Amino acid sequence: MPKKQMKLGAFLYPTGHHVAAWRHPQAAANAGSSIAHYREIAQVAEHAKFDMIFLADGAGTRGTEADLPALSRTATRYVAQFEPLTLLSSLAAVTSHVGLVATATTTYNEPYHVARKFASLDHLSGGRAGWNLVTSTSPYEAENFGSGGYTPHAQRYERAREFADVVRGLWDSWDDDAFVRDKESGVFFSPEKLHVLHHKGRHFSVRGPLNVARSPQGHPVMVQAGSSEPGKDLAAATAEVIFTAQVTLADAQSFYRDVKGRLAGYGRQWDHLKIMPGVFPVVGRTRQEANDKFEQLQDLIHPEVGLSLLQATGGLDLRGHDLDGPLPDELPPTEGGKSRQQLLIDLARRENLTIRQLYLKIAGARGHWQIVGTPADIADQLQERFEGEGADGFNVMPPYLPGGLVDFVELVLPELRRRGLFRTDYEGPTLRDNLGLPRPAIGGWAPAARAFEHAAE
Amino acid sequence: MPKKQMKLGAFLYPTGHHVAAWRHPQAAANAGSSIAHYREIAQVAEHAKFDMIFLADGAGTRGTEADLPALSRTATRYVAQFEPLTLLSSLAAVTSHVGLVATATTTYNEPYHVARKFASLDHLSGGRAGWNLVTSTSPYEAENFGSGGYTPHAQRYERAREFADVVRGLWDSWDDDAFVRDKESGVFFSPEKLHVLHHKGRHFSVRGPLNVARSPQGHPVMVQAGSSEPGKDLAAATAEVIFTAQVTLADAQSFYRDVKGRLAGYGRQWDHLKIMPGVFPVVGRTRQEANDKFEQLQDLIHPEVGLSLLQATGGLDLRGHDLDGPLPDELPPTEGGKSRQQLLIDLARRENLTIRQLYLKIAGARGHWQIVGTPADIADQLQERFEGEGADGFNVMPPYLPGGLVDFVELVLPELRRRGLFRTDYEGPTLRDNLGLPRPAIGGWAPAARAFEHAAE
Repeated sequence: MPKKQMKLGAFLYPTGHHVAAWRHPQAAANAGSSIAHYREIAQVAEHAKFDMIFLADGAGTRGTEADLPALSRTATRYVAQFEPLTLLSSLAAVTSHVGLVATATTTYNEPYHVARKFASLDHLSGGRAGWNLVTSTSPYEAENFGSGGYTPHAQRYERAREFADVVRGLWDSWDDDAFVRDKESGVFFSPEKLHVLHHKGRHFSVRGPLNVARSPQGHPVMVQAGSSEPGKDLAAATAEVIFTAQVTLADAQSFYRDVKGRLAGYGRQWDHLKIMPGVFPVVGRTRQEANDKFEQLQDLIHPEVGLSLLQATGGLDLRGHDLDGPLPDELPPTEGGKSRQQLLIDLARRENLTIRQLYLKIAGARGHWQIVGTPADIADQLQERFEGEGADGFNVMPPYLPGGLVDFVELVLPELRRRGLFRTDYEGPTLRDNLGLPRPAIGGWAPAARAFEHAAE
Repeated sequence: MPKKQMKLGAFLYPTGHHVAAWRHPQAAANAGSSIAHYREIAQVAEHAKFDMIFLADGAGTRGTEADLPALSRTATRYVAQFEPLTLLSSLAAVTSHVGLVATATTTYNEPYHVARKFASLDHLSGGRAGWNLVTSTSPYEAENFGSGGYTPHAQRYERAREFADVVRGLWDSWDDDAFVRDKESGVFFSPEKLHVLHHKGRHFSVRGPLNVARSPQGHPVMVQAGSSEPGKDLAAATAEVIFTAQVTLADAQSFYRDVKGRLAGYGRQWDHLKIMPGVFPVVGRTRQEANDKFEQLQDLIHPEVGLSLLQATGGLDLRGHDLDGPLPDELPPTEGGKSRQQLLIDLARRENLTIRQLYLKIAGARGHWQIVGTPADIADQLQERFEGEGADGFNVMPPYLPGGLVDFVELVLPELRRRGLFRTDYEGPTLRDNLGLPRPAIGGWAPAARAFEHAAE
């Protein structure tokens, strides 16, 4: 039996994940509106046999008028870029095997639209679509949808659970063989193979059926990123891939055991959920070269951008404080994202960091796992986490694009392949084939909402 | 000065516009989920220098359980097919000049999502996107969005006007040159070139800005199809292309004068709105061949499908009546679509048609303008309407696909070109270039909502 192999996603911010990526000499600064740029990196990822490319999303531009000095120096995904579903649909036409995973929020969408667009993408890509289900916490999104406020966590998750069930129910509207298209008899579809959803719940009332035939994968692959308790439960009930942000091996192993351990409660198998932590690799042929590459990026961070990163990542507003002094003792409370704020504060206190050192520390991976080193260094760490049951694979976050992805492909992948840890060719044409995930049967899944009712009993 | 030339759109239903199209031996019955099919017809349309391809839309599958006998024999757009924005985004990657126009309803969408997706499509197609703004009347859509009922006409249009203004406002979020991306100074965009919308209206509260840079066309081309009084006013205020359904020359001329005459009231020029009636052409090398082609399609209509067509087109439920008898004297009133119902009844009475004859009569073009004849016959009629100020161009509705489009391209276009009525090459890379429409300046358009307030004074 061949050795178990890791799964790899390419997590694509337009110019790359480092906060100053766009200023890098080899970065495509116009990435957010250059389809040629995305075509190139999608084809690089496919040529390298990545399982998927993955796009984050937010339906808004971050920041208020007061944030403009920092925002105007920042070219992350928060400013302006392609909308993910249109972008991936376009990339579907110029690729043939790489998976196409887009984020879409359950907070400001309708399940019918989401079910339809991802099913359509699955058809037009020949079975390569994945949906990263998220809930929205950002006020910058809320204000674009008639809501000034912040939706409480529990309510967002309740809506998300029902949303996931409606979407999966709509994907089961038609049997795989419903469309007989028999020109002779004139029967286009078999009426008994149509399943009308008739969903009536607390948040949604959706009759169905979906006006898209069942898609090549049955369901597009369900992806999630939540790491709160309700997030982990929702993932255990519904997700097939989880993107996580554990930095240490011990945390990764603990998260892995925790979430995988919940699967049985939802009637699911251990290996039908792939846990793929983010990793931010800075690769050099030598450690010195890797460090130099990283410092080159760090040097490009404007202090305004560094401070805004602390704000965006952990809700910490440290403007006006001495950049080369410690964090103030008293910090005002924030709405939402409390756990991320505490992570930052703990990090600063533990390592005795100045404000500048703190923002430099998180600037690369923004709190994700960061490895600066040689191909062997990086392969060692990935292998340790993969074989130590801390991960089923990784979500690679290139520091800048396209160069950072090309580095990983040209330097790290050969090392992983030499160790027998990563494929040399795709297992099949669909994302499920490559991830090793089963194709869902019609109705063959536990409704998240019902599972949660049981859990609450 | 060269002769004025007509604009041409290819209005694509998956298998074609004839209600029995999918049963035609040369029709692609699997069109609704075959990207290869759409790639072929998009490339045929582009090779022929069509201005655009156009996709209708409805967020639902028509019919209730009682309609299944007819529905299951019908492969029109009402059953299952690609979602338009994902489909056009994919086609953008395999075409370079043809315009890409998708329908999206204002009734069950959020303006931020719509503005964003069309701006994204405009970027990834290099300036070829168009948005066909519609309001939704179908209960089959309403039931997928938590609403069992029918939204009154006036309220739908009020929402649509505000929706159009929010979308255009969001498209003006960034000046064309806002993104300076100066790696040296670290300035990614110029803060003074960002325009935050801060819209607060009756239906929507949307802060903005849009998280997509201003798109190649400034605004994707605004398309509409309404022919009610509020529909014509909305079109005069906001539309740049109108798809209409006038059957006779006199009606077309009257509509043309009526709508164009309203433009000045909104500060707009006569030729900045292109009126493009639908035309359903059945082309033969001889009249006999054309008639035979048409009869071949008509013979494929199952009576269940014919009756459901009367229901779908004009709200007429004639099940249980003698197909070879006249329409009953008393017909139950319907909600919505009253004018289309009356058009059907008038047609039957005027031409003394049986029920079967009535459904056969509308089966081809479904109430649109139908021409069965030789290339010269069809060119004569198009020329008459074009030169007689009944149209600026036409929205070609192929009876079946891909054959019906290929017939038009191979037989009718050479005749139109011989007469100097249609281009031999594209004027430019964007849809606006080809339609001869100006590129909107930031804020250089009259808000529809305000225009209507003036009209009401």
